[in-house]
Amino acid sequence: MSAQSREVVRSLLRPEFRELTAYGAPQLDVPVRLNTNENSYELPDAVAQSVTAALAAEVKDLNRYPDREFTRLRGALSGYLATQAGVQLDVAQLWAANGSNEVIQHILQAFGGPGRRALGFVPSYSMHELISISTGTGWIRGRRDEQFDLQAADALAQIAEHDPDVVFLCSPNNPTGTSMSRDVVEAVLGATRGIVVVDEAYAEFAREGTPSALGLLPDNPRLIVSRTMSKAFAFAGARVGYLAADPEITEAMRLVRLPYHLSSLTQAAAIAALGHADLLLSTVDAIKGQRDRIVRTLADFGLLPVPSDSNFVMFGGLADAGATWQALLDHGILVRDIGIAHHLRVSAGTEAETTAFLDALRDHLRDNPPTARQPVNKEIA
Amino acid sequence: MSAQSREVVRSLLRPEFRELTAYGAPQLDVPVRLNTNENSYELPDAVAQSVTAALAAEVKDLNRYPDREFTRLRGALSGYLATQAGVQLDVAQLWAANGSNEVIQHILQAFGGPGRRALGFVPSYSMHELISISTGTGWIRGRRDEQFDLQAADALAQIAEHDPDVVFLCSPNNPTGTSMSRDVVEAVLGATRGIVVVDEAYAEFAREGTPSALGLLPDNPRLIVSRTMSKAFAFAGARVGYLAADPEITEAMRLVRLPYHLSSLTQAAAIAALGHADLLLSTVDAIKGQRDRIVRTLADFGLLPVPSDSNFVMFGGLADAGATWQALLDHGILVRDIGIAHHLRVSAGTEAETTAFLDALRDHLRDNPPTARQPVNKEIA
Repeated sequence: MSAQSREVVRSLLRPEFRELTAYGAPQLDVPVRLNTNENSYELPDAVAQSVTAALAAEVKDLNRYPDREFTRLRGALSGYLATQAGVQLDVAQLWAANGSNEVIQHILQAFGGPGRRALGFVPSYSMHELISISTGTGWIRGRRDEQFDLQAADALAQIAEHDPDVVFLCSPNNPTGTSMSRDVVEAVLGATRGIVVVDEAYAEFAREGTPSALGLLPDNPRLIVSRTMSKAFAFAGARVGYLAADPEITEAMRLVRLPYHLSSLTQAAAIAALGHADLLLSTVDAIKGQRDRIVRTLADFGLLPVPSDSNFVMFGGLADAGATWQALLDHGILVRDIGIAHHLRVSAGTEAETTAFLDALRDHLRDNPPTARQPVNKEIA
Repeated sequence: MSAQSREVVRSLLRPEFRELTAYGAPQLDVPVRLNTNENSYELPDAVAQSVTAALAAEVKDLNRYPDREFTRLRGALSGYLATQAGVQLDVAQLWAANGSNEVIQHILQAFGGPGRRALGFVPSYSMHELISISTGTGWIRGRRDEQFDLQAADALAQIAEHDPDVVFLCSPNNPTGTSMSRDVVEAVLGATRGIVVVDEAYAEFAREGTPSALGLLPDNPRLIVSRTMSKAFAFAGARVGYLAADPEITEAMRLVRLPYHLSSLTQAAAIAALGHADLLLSTVDAIKGQRDRIVRTLADFGLLPVPSDSNFVMFGGLADAGATWQALLDHGILVRDIGIAHHLRVSAGTEAETTAFLDALRDHLRDNPPTARQPVNKEIA
């Protein structure tokens, strides 16, 4: 690529992308990868066999386009949510796409876009902002309190101030790990005229008694609950996100999706995996155990872990988060620098991975002691 | 879904989608499906075995995200184009996505969008227009001549009139089937300041001596050649489209794509199939033979087939295209009503499928004779 061609192409690129760098969570081949909240457990043999058989059955017919409406997959997702969350949803209330990122893109294509604005409460899942930008939706950077929580009154005040077309709630929230109480979701639904997206990518890891927003669907045609198979289902490589909403919402998704967006392979693999939901989710308790161990141990280290409903823990109190990130990487352990001073985020892995992380961090802290306790959300404090 | 929820959700939908109906080529379970230009040949056993093995090798590790940069797949695509089209392209010049539709979406997200306009010469691939709309890009409906051809002088006049940001050329063109001569592509590149996309989805079916625009890449950083594995490769169900362009163009694609947009399964299946390019393309000659048979036979019937460089044939001269479409469907044969009066489009299938189509059409024409010869492009004539 010549300097000249760079200049020519850059001049034609949309201005909002010129200063952007591509999404870049490092994909490094290190022994312990705890930076993208993957599920550290590979697929159990029985599941792998079913998925492999389901894929094999599709291969000869790959010359044909997939089922554009992925009806069997929608049925399997409905069945899963009936079991996991106790909600009865019609097939027409389910929608799926290549990862929850594409689900969010479909939502913003239909209900956001130029002249419209989406409100999220940061820090939260960074793709809500990035997909808003890429769909031309104005992004409103809402606030959380000093403990990264969001109270109903605070949410309502920000909604009243901005009158957004789409509101993103993330529960459990990434990167903080905390769930949102259902009264916040209900208050937001009552206060906004727009679409409310509750991103529940980590719902299966929530502590006992944490309600899903799925229960609010019957009375709220403007509510969308998005989920993913990437985390609890250990299916990140297959790229399957989905949403549950009013059938009129999924009808809108049909207008903006690209035809045949879900391959025959994706559909077959997801259906097979959903048939083993119990087995796949059996790793969830082990992961929650390691997560709680991380929270307890980091507190013992004098750090400030945020109690988590997810498969990861955000923690503060580091003198220099970047230096700690590098020190861990030098030990072959990759965690996430989330761009919040003094904080890092770590996924709860297997027991061995968690031990490796905790041991390396303990060593590092010996020469780099935690800072004094302080309010954690520096954007507010 | 209640009438009330319909009203609520519709009121929040972007206005440009309210009157739209979802893309809807019928997916009917009939014996002879010749409506979406699929490859009628299922995957050869040797290819199916390789693809199945490649998929099986990915399944255990589906808990991990895929390679975000799909580097091996880009290498395999580069290798394929070196063999098939005789061009040497760096891995950084290749890009892929879930079908060529997503490739086009990436292009328009980066170089189109609000305040910008794309020009296509219709009739052409309808998704160019639909993805322009869904990305907020203004769509300019350019014209072809009475024979559905596009001459350089005519293209340049329309470019001068509209000054588009993106120009779509489709060669071989869908739905007409005809290739564009390379001097038109070169003239367009010289005349526009913007991006020129040459959609070569059907390139492998072109008649001997038809040049690909790939050869123009070295001197033209604004040129993008898009292709697909859906047609010649018989891989529609796997959803793999790709493009070749200047490395600076693929860098721009990295800014707009959703992270991890290509699943581990998609990448593995495509790499395995590309390893058998020769075998997969062995059906191309058979399909071209049936295509030429269709052109000859329809001319014998007194119809007006357009000579084709694709795996399909558009033909005019029908008294009532809708009635003929229905009559063929009544015989279990699904062809495409492309919305052009007196015309239909049929994919070249296997010999048996082609025979079934021709026999049914001959029967139908006995009571529904072709209309008198006439200029074919009614939009112009």
